[in-house]
Amino acid sequence: MEWKPDRQAKLPLYRQIAKRLEEQIVSGELPPGTPLPAERTLARRYGVNRGTVSAAYEELRASGLLQSMQGSGTWVSRYLWGVKQVPNWHAYTEGGAFLPTYPLLRRIQEASLNPDIINLAKAEPASAITPSLSVEEMSESIGSGIDLGYSHPKGNPALRERIAEHVREEYGILASPEEILVTSGAQQALYLISLCLLSPGDAIAMEGPSYAYSLPLFSSAGLRLYRLPMDQQGVAVEEIRALHQAHRIRMVFVNPTYQNPTGIVWSQSRRRRVLEICRELRIPLVEDDAYGILTLAGCRKPPAPIKALDEEGVVLYVNSLSKTMAPGLRIGWLIGPISVIDRLADAKRQMDFGTSSVSQQLAVALLERHRWRRQIDRVSHHLNRQSQTMRTALRKEMGGFMEWNSPQGSYHLWCRLHKPADEQELLDLAIREGVVFTPGGVYGAEPGWLRLTYSWESKERLEEGIRRLAKALESFC
Amino acid sequence: MEWKPDRQAKLPLYRQIAKRLEEQIVSGELPPGTPLPAERTLARRYGVNRGTVSAAYEELRASGLLQSMQGSGTWVSRYLWGVKQVPNWHAYTEGGAFLPTYPLLRRIQEASLNPDIINLAKAEPASAITPSLSVEEMSESIGSGIDLGYSHPKGNPALRERIAEHVREEYGILASPEEILVTSGAQQALYLISLCLLSPGDAIAMEGPSYAYSLPLFSSAGLRLYRLPMDQQGVAVEEIRALHQAHRIRMVFVNPTYQNPTGIVWSQSRRRRVLEICRELRIPLVEDDAYGILTLAGCRKPPAPIKALDEEGVVLYVNSLSKTMAPGLRIGWLIGPISVIDRLADAKRQMDFGTSSVSQQLAVALLERHRWRRQIDRVSHHLNRQSQTMRTALRKEMGGFMEWNSPQGSYHLWCRLHKPADEQELLDLAIREGVVFTPGGVYGAEPGWLRLTYSWESKERLEEGIRRLAKALESFC
Repeated sequence: MEWKPDRQAKLPLYRQIAKRLEEQIVSGELPPGTPLPAERTLARRYGVNRGTVSAAYEELRASGLLQSMQGSGTWVSRYLWGVKQVPNWHAYTEGGAFLPTYPLLRRIQEASLNPDIINLAKAEPASAITPSLSVEEMSESIGSGIDLGYSHPKGNPALRERIAEHVREEYGILASPEEILVTSGAQQALYLISLCLLSPGDAIAMEGPSYAYSLPLFSSAGLRLYRLPMDQQGVAVEEIRALHQAHRIRMVFVNPTYQNPTGIVWSQSRRRRVLEICRELRIPLVEDDAYGILTLAGCRKPPAPIKALDEEGVVLYVNSLSKTMAPGLRIGWLIGPISVIDRLADAKRQMDFGTSSVSQQLAVALLERHRWRRQIDRVSHHLNRQSQTMRTALRKEMGGFMEWNSPQGSYHLWCRLHKPADEQELLDLAIREGVVFTPGGVYGAEPGWLRLTYSWESKERLEEGIRRLAKALESFC
Repeated sequence: MEWKPDRQAKLPLYRQIAKRLEEQIVSGELPPGTPLPAERTLARRYGVNRGTVSAAYEELRASGLLQSMQGSGTWVSRYLWGVKQVPNWHAYTEGGAFLPTYPLLRRIQEASLNPDIINLAKAEPASAITPSLSVEEMSESIGSGIDLGYSHPKGNPALRERIAEHVREEYGILASPEEILVTSGAQQALYLISLCLLSPGDAIAMEGPSYAYSLPLFSSAGLRLYRLPMDQQGVAVEEIRALHQAHRIRMVFVNPTYQNPTGIVWSQSRRRRVLEICRELRIPLVEDDAYGILTLAGCRKPPAPIKALDEEGVVLYVNSLSKTMAPGLRIGWLIGPISVIDRLADAKRQMDFGTSSVSQQLAVALLERHRWRRQIDRVSHHLNRQSQTMRTALRKEMGGFMEWNSPQGSYHLWCRLHKPADEQELLDLAIREGVVFTPGGVYGAEPGWLRLTYSWESKERLEEGIRRLAKALESFC
């Protein structure tokens, strides 16, 4: 298919055309001296105005890639010594077994870098509530100086001991330090599982919608993804059996507490049942519990994680410090049978030679019981206030456009438009109005869903963000 | 092929047999109640003594997996409720697209965890010379507290600025912060390149022998590896052309200063030539410069990195803080064209969501000019002393067994046995004597080469290590 500029893309059309031509020149597809089509001709071919092509040519003339002369048209500069010789990087960056982030998510990420755009997409503790470790506290916890040597491949032994205590106290999970792998956040744990325990072509089942759909990780690993339908109690667990029969599911991924993005909390009986089924079918169950501790102040505590019920090592349990205390530390953990932990530790060693030993030493201090409790308390009050603010603003501005859930924990609302809209267009409009959110499609939801996070922005900016979003929706409808 | 215990393996034969049976029981291959062969029969089948099988059965009886009764033989315990139900983890850990570390290297890694074994395999700055950042120094460099939020996907902007200055001052490399990606050590940079810029089936060329052969990374990515022969001036660069013609080489990996493991320093003219050839063939050149700054005190400085000659963005340049200052920080960097950096940053974000922000904040302080210079000076004196110690010890103990090079920099000697020996056996013997080294085969060298590092141990332990190695060689010859 012939290349055309993408009208949905954020990049202006003339920049897209200039970029395309530049790639063709640098790659040698258009060698020095090649005449270019007349502006009018190229405009017709691409379905754009002549002025657009004109602007593209002008940009390339300015950077010395093109030359023009009145009456003899435009051609690739003959003085591009060396241009043909450099590697065609384009051919490399577009290849590779590992897939790039989906364009829609990349747009959200880019918009998030702009401080003028109000961020209803970020699921992080606001910097106001991340504990800032003072130098005194650090020195107290790490002694006179930081050890800068490599740590153990599975992670700093003191940290693994601390994590073992922590998960026993907080979640009732029994694990020895040998059954724990320290990872660079929950993200790396999922990555290691997809790459080391599964093979291309393997089928896996996960909640639909699910955070996991926003990760090209699984597609990069060549896995086939199957959706498990959900209701307010959790996944329709018996579906696992049918999927297993039909597709030989090899692993099940779930996020049973404050599921991202729906906010659903699985009932106790669904938790038991999924474990029984996986045990019976002999399929490992991966439990992502990154949000599980974030009960909003005043709401009921959720049931214990599935891992706490797991006596036979069926569950690989994933959690981290990123959503509660310190995203930048990049400290997560994976709990599972020793043979699995050893295999993943070996792979991690090959990929990055282990997690920062400084981060690990600080994590021991952050997980100290009193500091942890104080922080969780702070976060749950913060999140409760923030969610109230957002819901009040929504009631005021959005009643006509959509409905939303009443979250018991975590960072976001899950909202459904009364009239489904093109997500890409809506996101475009919203960004133009100065607010960014996550369309449900990113998580594999059907059209018309939005995820709005309330954790990052101040009260005023949250309210203003909702106003801006309402404006985008208005001009849309 | 039927399974047999491996007589070369480190694990005792009876443990291998017990492990094998355990796997068969846990996987359900041998369900509860299955009778096992008589000890004599199994011993014959595996070619071992009856006592060996007896010991294996005993171990499994102790752990409740087997039952025996006088006169009625041995069977899989009938009381293993649940055993059949758990996932067959073995089938998962043995699968996966990502290959485990080579067994020989795993043995070295295991031996390295034992403090009684003298380590001539570790290529790290000894803890005596890694700078221990005091709390005062930290507070000076990072202000009142550490920012625990996520950093920029390409890395902390202040750190990238500092790296840009650093490589300009130290190596004459011109790069903007936008052309720099902060990675978890040089290792992760190589991993990202292999996974994101190359596709399964692609051919790459590298020095033979090379550190890269010790990494299953490239095989995991499905790449075909071709060796470039070397002499004392560096790689026979014209060979790249022939390889390119024969195999469509898509990338060239080199380590031109204090090459690991040979210690070779490429001449200035070879550096120019490899760049010209890659430019002409339009193949990217990956330059691993992790050891380049480690000139032994009193030796001549090596030529500048190839990247300093690269005006057209042909070279991807990789370096880190691991070999000079702080392995545990896990801070490395990759310098290349912006499009490549952006692609790799995106992949890194998916895999681990970025490098520890604490590590990055500390790295800014460590790269501060005066601290850096002081540290390099310290390391180069240390390495010089250590290499003298090792060479003196070798002359005293080893003249009859092998010859070795005279390194100008870095961490190790490259030694050749007068009589090639089975590497696995020699390593076994050495470990039994209480010393560990790296056989050349790990780097793809022909039989008879050894890499001995002198950086990690004290003077006394280095000398003792060489004595132990001589003893192993003696009993070998």
